[in-house]
Amino acid sequence: MTEHIGVGMLGYAFMGKAHSNAFRTLAYMTWPPPLVPDLVAIGGRNASAVQEAAERYGFASAVTDWREIVADPRVGVFDNLSPNNLHAEPSIAAAEAGKHVVCEKPLGRDADEAFETWQRVQAAGVVHMCAFNYRFVPAVRLAREMLEAGELGEIHHFRAAYLQDWLTDPSAPASWRLDADEAGSGALGDLGAHIIDLGRYLVGEIASVGALTRTFVPERPGGKVTVDDAFEAFVEFEGGAVGTLEASRFCLGRKNALTFEINGSRGSLRFELERLNELQVDTGGSGFRTVLVTDGDQTFMEHWWPPGHVIGWEHTFVHELHHFLAAVASGGRIGPHGADFEDGYRAAEVCDAITRSAASGARETVRYR
Amino acid sequence: MTEHIGVGMLGYAFMGKAHSNAFRTLAYMTWPPPLVPDLVAIGGRNASAVQEAAERYGFASAVTDWREIVADPRVGVFDNLSPNNLHAEPSIAAAEAGKHVVCEKPLGRDADEAFETWQRVQAAGVVHMCAFNYRFVPAVRLAREMLEAGELGEIHHFRAAYLQDWLTDPSAPASWRLDADEAGSGALGDLGAHIIDLGRYLVGEIASVGALTRTFVPERPGGKVTVDDAFEAFVEFEGGAVGTLEASRFCLGRKNALTFEINGSRGSLRFELERLNELQVDTGGSGFRTVLVTDGDQTFMEHWWPPGHVIGWEHTFVHELHHFLAAVASGGRIGPHGADFEDGYRAAEVCDAITRSAASGARETVRYR
Amino acid sequence: MTEHIGVGMLGYAFMGKAHSNAFRTLAYMTWPPPLVPDLVAIGGRNASAVQEAAERYGFASAVTDWREIVADPRVGVFDNLSPNNLHAEPSIAAAEAGKHVVCEKPLGRDADEAFETWQRVQAAGVVHMCAFNYRFVPAVRLAREMLEAGELGEIHHFRAAYLQDWLTDPSAPASWRLDADEAGSGALGDLGAHIIDLGRYLVGEIASVGALTRTFVPERPGGKVTVDDAFEAFVEFEGGAVGTLEASRFCLGRKNALTFEINGSRGSLRFELERLNELQVDTGGSGFRTVLVTDGDQTFMEHWWPPGHVIGWEHTFVHELHHFLAAVASGGRIGPHGADFEDGYRAAEVCDAITRSAASGARETVRYR
Amino acid sequence: MTEHIGVGMLGYAFMGKAHSNAFRTLAYMTWPPPLVPDLVAIGGRNASAVQEAAERYGFASAVTDWREIVADPRVGVFDNLSPNNLHAEPSIAAAEAGKHVVCEKPLGRDADEAFETWQRVQAAGVVHMCAFNYRFVPAVRLAREMLEAGELGEIHHFRAAYLQDWLTDPSAPASWRLDADEAGSGALGDLGAHIIDLGRYLVGEIASVGALTRTFVPERPGGKVTVDDAFEAFVEFEGGAVGTLEASRFCLGRKNALTFEINGSRGSLRFELERLNELQVDTGGSGFRTVLVTDGDQTFMEHWWPPGHVIGWEHTFVHELHHFLAAVASGGRIGPHGADFEDGYRAAEVCDAITRSAASGARETVRYR
Repeated sequence: MTEHIGVGMLGYAFMGKAHSNAFRTLAYMTWPPPLVPDLVAIGGRNASAVQEAAERYGFASAVTDWREIVADPRVGVFDNLSPNNLHAEPSIAAAEAGKHVVCEKPLGRDADEAFETWQRVQAAGVVHMCAFNYRFVPAVRLAREMLEAGELGEIHHFRAAYLQDWLTDPSAPASWRLDADEAGSGALGDLGAHIIDLGRYLVGEIASVGALTRTFVPERPGGKVTVDDAFEAFVEFEGGAVGTLEASRFCLGRKNALTFEINGSRGSLRFELERLNELQVDTGGSGFRTVLVTDGDQTFMEHWWPPGHVIGWEHTFVHELHHFLAAVASGGRIGPHGADFEDGYRAAEVCDAITRSAASGARETVRYR
Repeated sequence: MTEHIGVGMLGYAFMGKAHSNAFRTLAYMTWPPPLVPDLVAIGGRNASAVQEAAERYGFASAVTDWREIVADPRVGVFDNLSPNNLHAEPSIAAAEAGKHVVCEKPLGRDADEAFETWQRVQAAGVVHMCAFNYRFVPAVRLAREMLEAGELGEIHHFRAAYLQDWLTDPSAPASWRLDADEAGSGALGDLGAHIIDLGRYLVGEIASVGALTRTFVPERPGGKVTVDDAFEAFVEFEGGAVGTLEASRFCLGRKNALTFEINGSRGSLRFELERLNELQVDTGGSGFRTVLVTDGDQTFMEHWWPPGHVIGWEHTFVHELHHFLAAVASGGRIGPHGADFEDGYRAAEVCDAITRSAASGARETVRYR
Repeated sequence: MTEHIGVGMLGYAFMGKAHSNAFRTLAYMTWPPPLVPDLVAIGGRNASAVQEAAERYGFASAVTDWREIVADPRVGVFDNLSPNNLHAEPSIAAAEAGKHVVCEKPLGRDADEAFETWQRVQAAGVVHMCAFNYRFVPAVRLAREMLEAGELGEIHHFRAAYLQDWLTDPSAPASWRLDADEAGSGALGDLGAHIIDLGRYLVGEIASVGALTRTFVPERPGGKVTVDDAFEAFVEFEGGAVGTLEASRFCLGRKNALTFEINGSRGSLRFELERLNELQVDTGGSGFRTVLVTDGDQTFMEHWWPPGHVIGWEHTFVHELHHFLAAVASGGRIGPHGADFEDGYRAAEVCDAITRSAASGARETVRYR
Repeated sequence: MTEHIGVGMLGYAFMGKAHSNAFRTLAYMTWPPPLVPDLVAIGGRNASAVQEAAERYGFASAVTDWREIVADPRVGVFDNLSPNNLHAEPSIAAAEAGKHVVCEKPLGRDADEAFETWQRVQAAGVVHMCAFNYRFVPAVRLAREMLEAGELGEIHHFRAAYLQDWLTDPSAPASWRLDADEAGSGALGDLGAHIIDLGRYLVGEIASVGALTRTFVPERPGGKVTVDDAFEAFVEFEGGAVGTLEASRFCLGRKNALTFEINGSRGSLRFELERLNELQVDTGGSGFRTVLVTDGDQTFMEHWWPPGHVIGWEHTFVHELHHFLAAVASGGRIGPHGADFEDGYRAAEVCDAITRSAASGARETVRYR
């Protein structure tokens, strides 16, 4: 019989919906699941909204103070989906209370905060994961597997962008995501962190960056914008690859366009999130092949459907939280395929280097501690 | 408080997984759901496999005789996912026992069987739906809405194909899908029925067809193939549009490639199921625009994620069964957006006309009763 | 030193421009050319227009009676680009006067006319070519080479369409192309003949067809439309492959969209003329690879540019007329890569079978003589 | 009657073939041409090769000393296609001899050389053009026209890359293009100059850059590589737009992949050179539309074929040299649609700023004189 584990979730909106769905779905789609997640508590600031989320997603209780979740003996996993300024303290408290911890990205508003969070959660001896869910796109995993197998040879280039368009209209309102105190940064931490993490996952550690940031619309209905709308960067990896990194919320026609391309001495790969079931693979310069990553022998797809039956964005969370529960169940590691808090911290160092470079005008070495 | 309704499901494999997931998911994703589905019974021939499916998907009981489901007073909806030769009798029995009925396509192995099923279920006064799930792809619904609004003008062409590749290898084994007694037909009823239904849904009633069918590999490990591997047809609609229809399981590189194109006097539409979040829209010959159908103001997408966050194949079932429960809850109709058993019957008449034409060599008028 | 040959051209408009450019260009692009074409005479009904064309393209003389070209001793090649009703008589006369003959497609307005033309030109002992220029797209030649090498295995399917949109607007005027007397047929002979020829070139002889034709707008400014606007067909090849054929001038968003797909037991190919530098190649169901056919070791590309530097539609004529001159120079054959008048005739038989089937409603065997 | 002008060409290989073809073709394709180009002299270092080129392309004479061309009274246009180290001196000499001058890009090996060349040629009072031929892709011109008309609103982003793969193999031999003395720089001046020029043409003057350069393979058969294999940069425009620039010859699967994307407050554009007949246009975030730029009412396409009949890479030279001859004939200007030597100089300043930044690690302001 599969053991159960209690889940306490902080946050009930966009990410709450995605993670709740993932826990519920993995319980029968990844069969048998490594642990059966019991949804025991969900928390947030708005009491009636949290209550409705609890009913909707099937949590046993709804709370408005995250400390109640941390103190709840039924909770074995603390899943932190709150705004960025609430990533550190609750995650640390939960870990120190013996809960395994999942935290949404970016781990901290800056590298200092992320480092502190990592160190203290690590010291608590629990399993921890920073929710870089795009590692769990089957096409991205396939890319990693090909890279590990040496199919691309020596890597020369990594170019990635994460482009959205929802701030193009100057009358789009301000929100916590546009406030430096709550969010830390803008497109950089929200979108850029994803492609930085993918660069690290696929190509290796980042050595240095040069960058600029830009806030196109500094004031919006509801408040000032104190974060970046976009950043532009070149990047150098420790292994010698070079490329560009970019994120923006001002790209009309690009809804959720995370794209990357990797060029190696033996082949190339291309990916775009809006067509996430596909990986473009070139071997030896012979032309890009569209691999529809839906076969049962491709990682993650054993859980789903026959070949050609595509999956959606939300499935990344199913894979990710399944991976987390498997690590908890087995006492195993989150890495290398999942991002742990060290990965969350390291992505934050790259973000900080971009911020420093934008301020100094100088190319900045990433200063891992 | 939302009322509950008991679901009895016949079939536990591929379709059982898709429908179970849909019932479980719609309960919180379409919030509040029109009715809360309680999974009360699941049936199939293999006792241990059914038992495991019941545990996995959360059905209260597992049975090996569908008559138990039909007789179960807790069951309000009978969801028939069995092989084609078990579509008629259990569906009729369930309806006559007062259950609302969902039946997978094709409704019958031929038009006679489909007609009888429709007539008797209709006479029972229950809600009935033939599970042509591709009507519930958001991009397909958008196409329908544009057509209804006249945005394409008068329709001249509909060309559709449904191409897969899993039988290309002659050593792929025989199965019930390749047996005329169980399946009725091959690519025609399995794949062709989908594009015939979409043609009817989007363009209108089909008037006549000319066709050939082909069985490339007549014997396989495990048995003879007594159905078509492919059919090729031209088609004429009552409204004057003309085009081609085709289905095959011998198209390497095509995994689940349902495609259609519609040309009207004011514009054109293109769709491909392997990129199901996209609709290609041409207005006045100005070039095809890739519309990523993921905005909250597009039908079905209000249930899901922010723009650009794509959904998968399985979501069609969530939308479809939500639509069904809404019709049950409101006493409303399945049509025009859902396919009822009359639609299932009418698609079967077109399939029969294709079969007749392939045999006679003559263009055949579709003979609706 | 390369010998020269005199070219007499009948027709000076669209095709006259394309062929004139091709003769001029091949003289230095295919270096050394097999024969140096001297543009000695151009003919057409409008004296001043022909005169201007002669000046523009560098013909030594301009005439309004094609018999002058046929009688001109300087002329070694007669290039017939006139409307379809002027394909037979001038081509035959030129051949019987000892000129090698190029004739635009369709060779005749029907199979009888095409047969007569072929027989008499053949009897004259000259080199003859029917200008199915799409055989001379490098990507099409690559497809043929792969098929000949057996890389696709046994062929199961050929589906092709040639879609344009210029008649969608009912106020588009009538012209010779819409008149049965001058053109023979409409989309069928103009567009359909191309895909029929490609089917024969790539897959093999066509055995039977079933078809319908349609004239959506029977009267236009300037006259009645007495030809088809579109045809829809299924097709069976002698080798066992089956598929669909279609042509239409009513497809908004499709400017010059000749597309085909071939599925074999080992792989598949896809092509679209609007991206004519690309061939999509699937091997064993692994996904379609976009082969950019611009490398110097790919047939025809030795004449042009470095890899990745794409060519245009007009280049097909350069390759085609180069091929023709090479056959003249060497006393060689036009086939199998060029279409000779027998190929022109055979395509006409398929067109006739389509026309018969549309009239009779019956599947028609192609009756090669 | 159209006047004639004598053309003297320095260089006979790749670019010589492209320019010769363009002069010959424009004479009848752009009808009537602004001036009839007479090919009077072609020059290069290899006597027999130049002689063969003269015969092949129809030049009246072949020379091995460019000074002969400069001194030739028949020459009205000096077309300089030699290696980069021979751009300055012959171009200046020709101008000072009263010839109008076309010079291939990059205008100089660095900004100093380009500045000197511009100043002295400008002082000579002749018409001058730096052959940035991609301004003459019809889709690029359409982009410019849309930008000028304000259809994209305020521009936020320009991201461009020019990727090739021919140096990926370390055994690819050294050549003048890999030698700093002859070429000045590598991917930067050869490929990067093109996207820098397009950025200036489409978005406006470049204010600053941050960059790194990389030589992956410093020694090859035949010699050392003393130029960059790739560069990576972020860029800031004077008008406020920001983005990335990149060029590399190490991108397998990318043959001639110049791509750019522009995001504005009202819409976006995307282009890729390997599909040069297409422009992707987004309006207001509604999705990218593939505009096939082949209609006769689109600039340049009045010279060619009916809609949908695509053109090739070489056509850019036809348009470009036609533009040049029109400016010579009318006494008009090369700009804004053609690049004159000032544009060549300004692109060189951006290249120099990239080189400085790669050396200093600091973001560099472009220092226009």
